[in-house]
Amino acid sequence: MAEESGVRGCMVIRPWGYGIWERIQALMDAQIKAAGVDNCYFPLFIPLSYFAKEAEHVDGFAKEMAVVTHHRLIGDGKGSLVPDPEAKLEEPLIVRPTSETVIGAAMARWVQSWRDLPLLTNQWANVVRWEMRTRMFLRTSEFLWQEGHTAHADRDDAMVETLRALEMYRAFAEGALAMPVMAGEKPENERFPGAVATYSIEAMMQDGKALQAGTSHYLGTGFAEAAGIRYQDKEGQQALCHTTSWGVSTRLIGGVIMTHGDDDGLRVPPAIAPHQIVILPMLRDDDGDAALLAYCEDLRRALVAQQALGEPMRVLLDKRAGKATQKRWAWVKKGVPLILEIGGRDAAGGQVSAIRRDRLWREDGKVNFAAQAKDEFIGKAAAELEDIQRSLYAEAAARRDANIVRGIDSFEALAAFYGDDRRYPGWVELGWSKPTGAELDEVVARLKTLKLTIRNTPMDGAPVSGNCVFTGRPAVERIYVARAY
Amino acid sequence: MAEESGVRGCMVIRPWGYGIWERIQALMDAQIKAAGVDNCYFPLFIPLSYFAKEAEHVDGFAKEMAVVTHHRLIGDGKGSLVPDPEAKLEEPLIVRPTSETVIGAAMARWVQSWRDLPLLTNQWANVVRWEMRTRMFLRTSEFLWQEGHTAHADRDDAMVETLRALEMYRAFAEGALAMPVMAGEKPENERFPGAVATYSIEAMMQDGKALQAGTSHYLGTGFAEAAGIRYQDKEGQQALCHTTSWGVSTRLIGGVIMTHGDDDGLRVPPAIAPHQIVILPMLRDDDGDAALLAYCEDLRRALVAQQALGEPMRVLLDKRAGKATQKRWAWVKKGVPLILEIGGRDAAGGQVSAIRRDRLWREDGKVNFAAQAKDEFIGKAAAELEDIQRSLYAEAAARRDANIVRGIDSFEALAAFYGDDRRYPGWVELGWSKPTGAELDEVVARLKTLKLTIRNTPMDGAPVSGNCVFTGRPAVERIYVARAY
Repeated sequence: MAEESGVRGCMVIRPWGYGIWERIQALMDAQIKAAGVDNCYFPLFIPLSYFAKEAEHVDGFAKEMAVVTHHRLIGDGKGSLVPDPEAKLEEPLIVRPTSETVIGAAMARWVQSWRDLPLLTNQWANVVRWEMRTRMFLRTSEFLWQEGHTAHADRDDAMVETLRALEMYRAFAEGALAMPVMAGEKPENERFPGAVATYSIEAMMQDGKALQAGTSHYLGTGFAEAAGIRYQDKEGQQALCHTTSWGVSTRLIGGVIMTHGDDDGLRVPPAIAPHQIVILPMLRDDDGDAALLAYCEDLRRALVAQQALGEPMRVLLDKRAGKATQKRWAWVKKGVPLILEIGGRDAAGGQVSAIRRDRLWREDGKVNFAAQAKDEFIGKAAAELEDIQRSLYAEAAARRDANIVRGIDSFEALAAFYGDDRRYPGWVELGWSKPTGAELDEVVARLKTLKLTIRNTPMDGAPVSGNCVFTGRPAVERIYVARAY
Repeated sequence: MAEESGVRGCMVIRPWGYGIWERIQALMDAQIKAAGVDNCYFPLFIPLSYFAKEAEHVDGFAKEMAVVTHHRLIGDGKGSLVPDPEAKLEEPLIVRPTSETVIGAAMARWVQSWRDLPLLTNQWANVVRWEMRTRMFLRTSEFLWQEGHTAHADRDDAMVETLRALEMYRAFAEGALAMPVMAGEKPENERFPGAVATYSIEAMMQDGKALQAGTSHYLGTGFAEAAGIRYQDKEGQQALCHTTSWGVSTRLIGGVIMTHGDDDGLRVPPAIAPHQIVILPMLRDDDGDAALLAYCEDLRRALVAQQALGEPMRVLLDKRAGKATQKRWAWVKKGVPLILEIGGRDAAGGQVSAIRRDRLWREDGKVNFAAQAKDEFIGKAAAELEDIQRSLYAEAAARRDANIVRGIDSFEALAAFYGDDRRYPGWVELGWSKPTGAELDEVVARLKTLKLTIRNTPMDGAPVSGNCVFTGRPAVERIYVARAY
């Protein structure tokens, strides 16, 4: 999937991992475009001065960022290379941690009148956030993402867009990634700085921890004011735009790994698998190989002519040299949903031998091959892939549902539940009184002693009863607390 | 298309320009994948030490590159932000000017045996080359590109791949971009440093200058040796790989602009137009608008259900507020191939009024509207788009062919041809004796006095006669000389 690159926190994404990202991009991008959002591209570098406004309000401002200070490399005359002192930039440049500020500046240029609204833009790009502790796909200094930025005439329109993006992420995570999530609003302390409201999708990993897998922010008019995004309304008056932003990243791949992995490697949901089916001919380097390959090629053609999950099937005929069993285990480890091993006798008898990655082992401990007629397999391949997609989701949803604990009614009970020896933390759903300000800070600090954070308040608006475990006052809404990545 | 970003040489690519890049990516990526090449992603940052080997062989090594020296920004206590002196990197990082070195290091890890070959990788990414003089899309400090890197068991296999990539670029430029090019080998002095052979496609811009629009390099075993890319062959011996690299960039968009633009703006070839057809209803803000929009929506649906140039048609119904004529000129300027203006009477009469962007004006100086029955238009829309694609190519090819001059038989005649007052330089095709080394350097220097460079030697291998204008010896092959971007 990925490997260390020799540069702290930057990864090399190998073909299978990048293929999954390409699938995520293709499916998500189609939805972004269908919502009327236009893709743009903004520069990698941001002038240092763009961060000055942010710094004004922060005592002891210090941010981990990659800072470009020179534009030339020279030999130092002693056999080493150094930044050329003669080529020091007048103003250092920052490698974008997000394009928020430059997109805001562009929007201020692009929006003049109510006719220009809503302005819906998105960018697919690499961004850099210098991280001290990194973890492949989950927290890397460089990562790939999309960032949507939109400007609207009023609050209602901006809020509709904020929630549209959140719902797009929820449906995508549960549909394409087969990864059940809780969509909800983050508490005040977890808001994106400057946002009026921040929403997230939260997934439960197999170790019981929560992973924030996507966010959507309603930014009010604060960002528009800072960037000068104003429009002339129908009455000829100048007004500030209401803006939103929303994003997901290569972190989603980390979520997929930790949701669907098992002892034999990854299991990739068919919707995002670069190859949904791999055909492995058991080549023998003899005269029979030609007929075997022709049989496999016929099979491949019949499969790619069909649709599964609304798209043409993606099928690889793996003709590379090497032992079929070694190749099989390599594909198992990568998590191809269906592997077909075809020997000379299968070809002669019109058979295929299929392995479902999500049902790899029989009860007797042997690999779960399903021998069947070729035409029978072709006829049901789409249904099989769709069933794998559903099964992976169902398995993850059952695990999540079994590990959300309800009914804890005091902080002491919460502390006891998350005792140090609890190997599998899970999440706890609590009613709370939605404290704010200093009272919330105290709640956050108390939770921190248990290594817990508030994930979000679910969107379902289900009724809540009882008292807040933190304040003792009547609960007004539910929250999830969990350990998190 | 694009605009200045406030950062030297970095551009903001607006939706229409980025949409063209997305089309280029989609079409090219399909061909790259069809050739069995896998996409990967490599890190943005490269350790400075990776450039040390390159520098060893170069006296006075100095390269324009963006150098990251710090990983934190802090307030200086005087209201400004500065790189934190405490957060200086032990080893500076370079923002990748290409991923050549890191991909080489990865290949050395990934290749073990002849079974791993050929190893075919590609990356779509942003790269940075600090440029002193920049020009939108043609020479920018940051640009977007793809870089293919492949490793092979022997020279023949690597050369086949080098020429496959070159032919892919030629066919793509002439097909998708409707931009005629000359595919050929660069002279020795224009080779990529370290390459054994460098090939390019060269396009003639409307001003008669040449634009190098794509390159493909056969690198021999030199890069493999530097990076340690070795494999065990079938006899169990260690051998060096033969490698290639090939790339095109957002520069292609600059080529499209300077090939197809006219006084009214850009003309985008239908194959890469984000919208091939824009439908403009002439809304009046009255009761008739609903029927007009329904008519236009019917038309849109009928069109998108069809194929043109092998893909579903891309059609936008532009319902935004604003005067239809203003919107028309905005789309003309962007270069949409077909614009349909539909008024209430057109709708009532089952008509459409179409403008072909490549035939915008009638001889009498009026806009060249073609009123016709809706069904008739629907029936021929695909043929019309395909005809526009062909026409744009034919126009550019005729211009190129008319401006390649042959028969110049002395350097003096060449100098006279490119006299200072020549507004439209064009290209000159010369026979030459293919000098090398110091003799070639002298040729290059003489051409430089005329602001000329050697573009390439065409691949067609047509016979050549006469003597070399530089050396007086018999000519052995043809070259194009031109002024260039």
